[in-house]
Amino acid sequence: MQKPTITDIDAAQQRIGDHIHRTPVYTSATIDRWSGKTVFFKLENLQKTGAFKLRGACNAVLCLSTEQAQKGVATHSSGNHAAALAYAASLRQIPAFVVMPENAPANKIAAVREYGGQITFCRPTLKAREKSLIKVCDQTGAVFIHPYDHPDVIAGQGTACLEFLDQVEELDAILIPIGGGGLAAGTAIAAQKKSIPVIACEPEMANDAYISFIQGERVTNAYPDTIADGLRTLLSPLTFAVVKESVQDIVCVSEKEIIRAWRMVLERMKWVVEPSAAVPVAALIDHPDRIPGNRIGIILSGGNIDLTHLPRFDRN
Amino acid sequence: MQKPTITDIDAAQQRIGDHIHRTPVYTSATIDRWSGKTVFFKLENLQKTGAFKLRGACNAVLCLSTEQAQKGVATHSSGNHAAALAYAASLRQIPAFVVMPENAPANKIAAVREYGGQITFCRPTLKAREKSLIKVCDQTGAVFIHPYDHPDVIAGQGTACLEFLDQVEELDAILIPIGGGGLAAGTAIAAQKKSIPVIACEPEMANDAYISFIQGERVTNAYPDTIADGLRTLLSPLTFAVVKESVQDIVCVSEKEIIRAWRMVLERMKWVVEPSAAVPVAALIDHPDRIPGNRIGIILSGGNIDLTHLPRFDRN
Repeated sequence: MQKPTITDIDAAQQRIGDHIHRTPVYTSATIDRWSGKTVFFKLENLQKTGAFKLRGACNAVLCLSTEQAQKGVATHSSGNHAAALAYAASLRQIPAFVVMPENAPANKIAAVREYGGQITFCRPTLKAREKSLIKVCDQTGAVFIHPYDHPDVIAGQGTACLEFLDQVEELDAILIPIGGGGLAAGTAIAAQKKSIPVIACEPEMANDAYISFIQGERVTNAYPDTIADGLRTLLSPLTFAVVKESVQDIVCVSEKEIIRAWRMVLERMKWVVEPSAAVPVAALIDHPDRIPGNRIGIILSGGNIDLTHLPRFDRN
Repeated sequence: MQKPTITDIDAAQQRIGDHIHRTPVYTSATIDRWSGKTVFFKLENLQKTGAFKLRGACNAVLCLSTEQAQKGVATHSSGNHAAALAYAASLRQIPAFVVMPENAPANKIAAVREYGGQITFCRPTLKAREKSLIKVCDQTGAVFIHPYDHPDVIAGQGTACLEFLDQVEELDAILIPIGGGGLAAGTAIAAQKKSIPVIACEPEMANDAYISFIQGERVTNAYPDTIADGLRTLLSPLTFAVVKESVQDIVCVSEKEIIRAWRMVLERMKWVVEPSAAVPVAALIDHPDRIPGNRIGIILSGGNIDLTHLPRFDRN
């Protein structure tokens, strides 16, 4: 697969612009005080479907020819990509087939259904998912849209950064969370437009991207286990190729640091974000020596939390 | 005590303008779809100290003469007024003495301390609070600033509505939660400027304002018990006098309706608000026949939630 280019991201922005929110950028005096930097937050938790994932899904669906699109699209996901793909498919009035593990959170299932997605449940293993997906694609003729190992998806995710560059002048660095690497890859390519370094932030408990980055070879046998449920995925061949080349650094944070940063965003900034979105905030607060410069942009990646499954927050 | 007038609220706005946030107004396609109305939300959860209470506390503190102010201010509160008063006092560099029940939530205690408030703990009864407060005032010479039975506090709270009128044209009604009645009274007076009806929204489980309003006589012996912890207070003589005269209607909502509305704001709108702030949202969704007109303004009163004490949210 071809790595997407800045031109692809520009084209994606044109293509999806009418269907997504241009999300707002906010600042927080509290975070500036605690970090000693001037921080700008791009609120992708306010994106339609509650996460940046709609950008990539929307771009991929709109890139399909009429012929390709007519039998619909399919994916396997327990998370935001599933809802995003269902929403994107509804824009073209084509079916979206989603394979979800039978233990997927109720709110994620509800979101996919709300956007008209057709769900096939499977056992909660990657093998079962992949097998179910092949079966669904065979039966329906739907096109598989991978959550991140897909150039059109990566180009779509990059549009958040393009908007950000337009909204805030002279950023010294942009921080994003890294899981499968779609947002990281898209951001790293888009940020080249103004030569801004992109720092990917990853949970220690799901540090396959960090190890792959350091070793120069993609880790394929890791078992991520972190509260940041959106980041329990491994880099793919395509995202690794981009990340290796274009991301400046990867900073790892502990579970404790993620929970503390998450809590700070909820309690002090009053924005509902998911734990994955708090990972760059944790990097900013707890690893300031790793963050270059003073004017820092953070993409708050999503806001879909499961209120029936919140962790136990300890008293301070 | 004199009921405040529109002139007092205008003066309060001038007085506190440099010290508070002019909070933003947002809309939500989801809420518009669910309610069938066009709804504007004023986000006082983003106010400094996390609630509208700073407006009243700030106005009351700034109204004191140098001589009155020199020995500081005092109050009893387990909630947002305590933090707001501590913050307001810090603006004049005078001490704030706060009597808090020993079982007050850790986050509220931390907030009062962060803003420099000096806490005296007491047993968790109204009697113990009042006794401790008298003692603190006697010992320190501090001026008691009541959380709502105070014309300067009410005038300060009214400034949220003044801003709202300036931010959104032609509202058909403004909805606010009612507990002690400070926000309700201030809003009802301010809204007279454009003759907009104000609907107060109250938990059924804390319906002293509703009963007082219907009976024309203030209930003084109720025992509010609701998840909306900011509304577990009774109207005072002054707030009742204003509410009786200037509030158009009071709509009561069940605990179930409050929790559902709260969850909707958290999950769908991605704003952290406290349960009290969801009370008008519940009125809008579940009692639409009681809400006049189509363009509705809602003041989301505050966003200070205790993550260590969230209720159990049921699966849908």
